[in-house]
Amino acid sequence: MNFGSDNWAGAAPEIIDAIARANEGPAPAYGGDELTARVEARISDIFETDCAAYFVATGGAANGLALSVMTPPYGMILCHEQSHVQMDECAGPEFFTGGAKLLPIAGEAGKLTPQGIAKALAGFPHRPPHGAPERVLSLTQATECGTIYSADELKALCDFAHAADLKVHMDGARFANTVAASGASPAALSWRTGVDVLCFGGTKNGCLAAEAVVFFDKAMAKDFEFRRKRAGHLWSKMRFIAAQFDAYLADDLWLRLAGDANAMATQLSNGLTATDGVEVSYPTEINQVFACFPDGVAEKLKDQGAMFFPWVTPGDPANGRMHRLVTSFRTTPRDVDLFLSAVDKAKSP
Amino acid sequence: MNFGSDNWAGAAPEIIDAIARANEGPAPAYGGDELTARVEARISDIFETDCAAYFVATGGAANGLALSVMTPPYGMILCHEQSHVQMDECAGPEFFTGGAKLLPIAGEAGKLTPQGIAKALAGFPHRPPHGAPERVLSLTQATECGTIYSADELKALCDFAHAADLKVHMDGARFANTVAASGASPAALSWRTGVDVLCFGGTKNGCLAAEAVVFFDKAMAKDFEFRRKRAGHLWSKMRFIAAQFDAYLADDLWLRLAGDANAMATQLSNGLTATDGVEVSYPTEINQVFACFPDGVAEKLKDQGAMFFPWVTPGDPANGRMHRLVTSFRTTPRDVDLFLSAVDKAKSP
Amino acid sequence: MNFGSDNWAGAAPEIIDAIARANEGPAPAYGGDELTARVEARISDIFETDCAAYFVATGGAANGLALSVMTPPYGMILCHEQSHVQMDECAGPEFFTGGAKLLPIAGEAGKLTPQGIAKALAGFPHRPPHGAPERVLSLTQATECGTIYSADELKALCDFAHAADLKVHMDGARFANTVAASGASPAALSWRTGVDVLCFGGTKNGCLAAEAVVFFDKAMAKDFEFRRKRAGHLWSKMRFIAAQFDAYLADDLWLRLAGDANAMATQLSNGLTATDGVEVSYPTEINQVFACFPDGVAEKLKDQGAMFFPWVTPGDPANGRMHRLVTSFRTTPRDVDLFLSAVDKAKSP
Amino acid sequence: MNFGSDNWAGAAPEIIDAIARANEGPAPAYGGDELTARVEARISDIFETDCAAYFVATGGAANGLALSVMTPPYGMILCHEQSHVQMDECAGPEFFTGGAKLLPIAGEAGKLTPQGIAKALAGFPHRPPHGAPERVLSLTQATECGTIYSADELKALCDFAHAADLKVHMDGARFANTVAASGASPAALSWRTGVDVLCFGGTKNGCLAAEAVVFFDKAMAKDFEFRRKRAGHLWSKMRFIAAQFDAYLADDLWLRLAGDANAMATQLSNGLTATDGVEVSYPTEINQVFACFPDGVAEKLKDQGAMFFPWVTPGDPANGRMHRLVTSFRTTPRDVDLFLSAVDKAKSP
Repeated sequence: MNFGSDNWAGAAPEIIDAIARANEGPAPAYGGDELTARVEARISDIFETDCAAYFVATGGAANGLALSVMTPPYGMILCHEQSHVQMDECAGPEFFTGGAKLLPIAGEAGKLTPQGIAKALAGFPHRPPHGAPERVLSLTQATECGTIYSADELKALCDFAHAADLKVHMDGARFANTVAASGASPAALSWRTGVDVLCFGGTKNGCLAAEAVVFFDKAMAKDFEFRRKRAGHLWSKMRFIAAQFDAYLADDLWLRLAGDANAMATQLSNGLTATDGVEVSYPTEINQVFACFPDGVAEKLKDQGAMFFPWVTPGDPANGRMHRLVTSFRTTPRDVDLFLSAVDKAKSP
Repeated sequence: MNFGSDNWAGAAPEIIDAIARANEGPAPAYGGDELTARVEARISDIFETDCAAYFVATGGAANGLALSVMTPPYGMILCHEQSHVQMDECAGPEFFTGGAKLLPIAGEAGKLTPQGIAKALAGFPHRPPHGAPERVLSLTQATECGTIYSADELKALCDFAHAADLKVHMDGARFANTVAASGASPAALSWRTGVDVLCFGGTKNGCLAAEAVVFFDKAMAKDFEFRRKRAGHLWSKMRFIAAQFDAYLADDLWLRLAGDANAMATQLSNGLTATDGVEVSYPTEINQVFACFPDGVAEKLKDQGAMFFPWVTPGDPANGRMHRLVTSFRTTPRDVDLFLSAVDKAKSP
Repeated sequence: MNFGSDNWAGAAPEIIDAIARANEGPAPAYGGDELTARVEARISDIFETDCAAYFVATGGAANGLALSVMTPPYGMILCHEQSHVQMDECAGPEFFTGGAKLLPIAGEAGKLTPQGIAKALAGFPHRPPHGAPERVLSLTQATECGTIYSADELKALCDFAHAADLKVHMDGARFANTVAASGASPAALSWRTGVDVLCFGGTKNGCLAAEAVVFFDKAMAKDFEFRRKRAGHLWSKMRFIAAQFDAYLADDLWLRLAGDANAMATQLSNGLTATDGVEVSYPTEINQVFACFPDGVAEKLKDQGAMFFPWVTPGDPANGRMHRLVTSFRTTPRDVDLFLSAVDKAKSP
Repeated sequence: MNFGSDNWAGAAPEIIDAIARANEGPAPAYGGDELTARVEARISDIFETDCAAYFVATGGAANGLALSVMTPPYGMILCHEQSHVQMDECAGPEFFTGGAKLLPIAGEAGKLTPQGIAKALAGFPHRPPHGAPERVLSLTQATECGTIYSADELKALCDFAHAADLKVHMDGARFANTVAASGASPAALSWRTGVDVLCFGGTKNGCLAAEAVVFFDKAMAKDFEFRRKRAGHLWSKMRFIAAQFDAYLADDLWLRLAGDANAMATQLSNGLTATDGVEVSYPTEINQVFACFPDGVAEKLKDQGAMFFPWVTPGDPANGRMHRLVTSFRTTPRDVDLFLSAVDKAKSP
């Protein structure tokens, strides 16, 4: 009954096998090997456009490095007040950018809207050089609340951003879950709607440690290799990240893993919704379920070994009551059933 | 009819005279001169405690340098969402600190409260090392809305901060106006209520370019000289900042200048309050008046040469209508009368 | 005949196996798992002292993060002019430290001496706050020239540093080769001679991507977790670095891998020394051989598929002629013999 | 007998008068005033080209801000090992640039040469992204040794730099002394020979606190205002720096002040050269004289109230014996005569 995080799930066997296979014979270091070149190019196929892709090991590195080439150090990055870049990276974007400012903006169910952004900017008017000038809109797809921006919502946001001369960054730590859930193509959810740079996650979805920073405008990437190197994020044995993506993208493994996780979340969400006294807080669109349990129930579940954490958000009146439950490719229908039974039992006096 | 900003007023004649007087004979460079030592020591007298004071030329430098020794680069600075450090320094605090995060917090009339801070932090829970850990509470005295924290309000905030292991920074760009208006002593409004570091402003109140960073705990200042130097804020001819403070503090010049400006704001505020159709937005406690004029009036006033600017704040429904009027030591009763008459005239059809 | 770099060698099979084994069942993320705790503790056994160890994936990250807690951002780091931190990390130490200055210092065969450092500092005298104050001495063991500091040499350097109030950082990317070659204990080559922080490398010696930053004074490590996180170097699936170190340290695997590589370098060096017209440039003490070949020989060897690179150093009159040959745990005696034969053949007209 | 530094001399009376005159009536803040605009434009006249000029208060700020727009944060700045940016700004360039690397390079009498730079770069070969890529050549005119690059020497250096795709920065803290001494035009010593950005000093030559950063390619300046603001170097009462430059450039005041200082140095140098047992170390080309006195003489001179400091340079065998004597616009022929007599007396047993 482990719903702590998709990060707890380890790696898919196919990923481990690919690493082992990549370990044959010598290969040039620092990404000069054939496998890395081939898999970087494979990203262009997936996104149906000629793009520049760079591998790193963590999502924090991917976001920070991407943002560092998208804004000058005095620029401002607009983001959701619950976004990972704002809440969970220990001021990493500020570090990588050399001191850019993040402007946290409110929005329902983890989503930004053009209206919400416009309202925030109305309170931060242009008075160069006094206020930090906004340069980047950072979106998270899927959001921290497990919701998905539709292609139309994305397009409205990207159009708004580009009209204001902002670049659009997408934190796609759970982009795979989004594609699997929505059925839209990777292209439709990224550059075709206006995303400039996508951090395309692998780690939360069955890779060991693998993320790709994807630049749809290759000219924007000209500094990236220097920045990745000086931040200690260029692996000497880069083939071992490339190998993960090689397996991840082969035969749609990434979509199968994400789809499995999503399906388990749907089953869990349906079960909880049908349970008296349990409230499911946001639409369950990917592999995360947010739920408020009756008093005492969460504690009883944990006593029985269920693993999940409270979810706290800025200004939320449910703070202290809402919990997040995350499924992964390793979650089984039986895990979900066991948990739902345990909830039922915990509710009874 | 110039109410654009106290920065427009130039310097008080006493300040210019002091600069001219300080220009006699050679003097050691970089603050090694006697005048600098003497005036730094004079700060201790003013604050009735042995403190460490460092001179710089601008408020942005004072705030940024002060904060840079109060937080590690991965720390978080809690501040009002309208504060100068958040809105007006082009990400300066992020620059000086090496990437610390600012968490903007809402509060009535420019003021933070322990409740408001607690609510903001409830949405940013401790999960080291994921979220940036809060390390500093930054207060502005007087606030950007021209209001004053009472000694009791300050004490409650500082107690809250210290209980949470935060240091308290005070942006005192208009500290002189505060002291003059409240009648409280400099000590009562700073270290006695728990302020750890005060940026004690001179520039907005008649100096040419002079601010003092005052450390009430001298141990906190150990890095300051290195940081001031590397940021290009150590003057080689430091005697010319010291001379400004020398005159500023002599014979209570600082309080007279601030008192004069405050009195003119009171007169202006009273006049506007008595004017039908004009709303004065915050209590007028120092040298700033915030007013909403009837439609078309602001434009007519400007056409007649009155100088003042719109005031825009995060989420304010009055955005677009509120204006800020700032008085200075140079403002005369006649300036105020002329303006009030002009308002009257502009209102009539 | 691949002597390009030890980085080309991939990972030892034991390391890959350990990764596969670690992939069982869920485990807490971000280093909260049992394996990580156990292997971190194992580092204390290896070094025979209670120390704090943190895992990261690359040597650049290890060095940069270590230095960032050893010097303030305005401090100066003394290093060899050929050191990796100076020459090969794309200004990474400057990035991680927030702008510290590196002072490159000359020294024979990659080694610093107290005399050489004293001479360099004589030209950079203390004039606070004008010059950046030196705070760290960074040593590389083994050096970039494949040479080893003896325990006595180390002690003299560390004593010199501590007398000048400097902390001592050791870049131990090839620390394993040093221990294997010298027969001295890990403790004798680190904290017992005065090293404060060691970057203990695994990647160049058969790990996939694994380095440990080891603080012998645990108090110095108090910031480390925050800094690692914000730099994107905290893995969510940390067990996969821990597993590498687990296997690396088990049954002296690390010393066997390094010993094998060293032995091949000795064989290669002996063969080249015995070859007329070839000069071996530094004592061959670990797994690197530096050689100058007769004109045209290097080109012929490369034409036959031998892989190695020119080695260029500041002010070296041999620049353009010297090459570096690196052996690894995968190098075989037959590889060496083939190369030596190829050299013989290439020399003949 | 004060030869400590030109910084000790205070300000020229014309500068103080100009400040007082500028203090009339209100003026827009932050450089929006007419005087600032007029004086910025005046810089274009002086340099006979349309350039962008920005005022700041200190040389460290000018250099740091200029460099911050000339190199990315991972770039390398080539400079003389004795340059102010390397030795005297407490790692300021590293701070302003966000972590760029300075490569200190040796050269006779404070001067760099294309040969010297080429030699240094030969030891720091291009291997992107491993080494920090060089992006800026920083020259000091006049040098720290009081010597002047001729227009031909400058051209050779700038051509070399541009051929290698480097921008050329000139630290012109004593540019006035250079122009006065050489008779060459400001244009001839800057953009006409290839300088891209000049930090044009006023403070060391009779201003109170005034430096101008001059961009000969205005496109390079696009970020400058934001960077100046966030570093706290935009004065709210900017007219008071503009006023200094207004007076400084009027009627060639700057050249008269510098010429006077230079003449006194020449007189001093001639006198010392004619004194048995005293060695003058570099050609005396501006307002600095470097001299080695017989044993015990410097101490006796200081006992009699003469003020000057030892001059220490990297690797200089004369370290401990050489002293620097600086003249200023305030130095009189009588000051020089008194000092020379004192030297004579101090020598006699």
